[in-house]
Amino acid sequence: MSQKGVAVWLTGLPSAGKSTIAASLKKHLREMGLVAVILDSDDVRAWLSKGLGFSRKDRDENIFKLAEVAYRIVDGGALAIVAAISPYQEARERARKRIGAFLEVYVKCPIEICVERDVKGLYGKAKSGGITNMTGLDDPYEPPLAPDLTLETDCESIEGCVERILGGLRDRGYIG
Amino acid sequence: MSQKGVAVWLTGLPSAGKSTIAASLKKHLREMGLVAVILDSDDVRAWLSKGLGFSRKDRDENIFKLAEVAYRIVDGGALAIVAAISPYQEARERARKRIGAFLEVYVKCPIEICVERDVKGLYGKAKSGGITNMTGLDDPYEPPLAPDLTLETDCESIEGCVERILGGLRDRGYIG
Repeated sequence: MSQKGVAVWLTGLPSAGKSTIAASLKKHLREMGLVAVILDSDDVRAWLSKGLGFSRKDRDENIFKLAEVAYRIVDGGALAIVAAISPYQEARERARKRIGAFLEVYVKCPIEICVERDVKGLYGKAKSGGITNMTGLDDPYEPPLAPDLTLETDCESIEGCVERILGGLRDRGYIG
Repeated sequence: MSQKGVAVWLTGLPSAGKSTIAASLKKHLREMGLVAVILDSDDVRAWLSKGLGFSRKDRDENIFKLAEVAYRIVDGGALAIVAAISPYQEARERARKRIGAFLEVYVKCPIEICVERDVKGLYGKAKSGGITNMTGLDDPYEPPLAPDLTLETDCESIEGCVERILGGLRDRGYIG
């Protein structure tokens, strides 16, 4: 197996399935003998973006930092898997321009189902007034205008989603 | 060629040759078809460690963040090349513990020669009082107690240094 540097950028609502797909994609790639680094927004907020909140400015700064790390990983020839709500089209476009080899993957799921899943209990907290700036409720999410891939996690299996990303990477010559 | 995740951590005085060796090592590894990501302290201070200064606390935070990035790169199966003065033994030990697969490479050069090279003009600035906390002058550098490799850049060529690092990686089974 061979690979070229590329970022797989998973964007979508909280609880849409980004982290789960990222972890499964990484596992598959590693089993194929390829190098794949996960940058999960939930994780990086504890160190890379420590101190940043959820205003538009702070969200933009978080995405900027994620893109800077991903840029260096891609430049080194590896596959960077970024899982981040990244709600603003403009910030995602900046990341694409910075990184170059970039697959924008829209992890799509109706808000009602995300609220039902509520993996991290954030929708619940937001509804009870415990937190604000919750994407999908009182903070905007701008769906990708022209994503490279759209995964519909309310009707596709994780396994199926991962297969489609692998196919997209193969078709574009990033793995093979 | 195959590879396992590992961090090559280059420590030494300013102008000892860390960045030059890092760039040359990366070039060699990439030409061998391997994945190698550079994290250079001079570079990351503009984004990863933006706002941090050169107090011991800020230096420790810079090394902490570098180690966190390197940890994820190594976990993904890639080779992370870190070039950072990292003057404190304790901070380097924390990085080693965090990352696991870790080669501490002491880029050794007498201070007089570093001052003469003064690649970034920092020794000059420090001597004229333009900056403080300059490692080697008014800030300490603790040489590694038991480095995996010691490169003497006052009498070894860059090419020779890189060859020795590649040998160290081969001997330990990280590349082959």
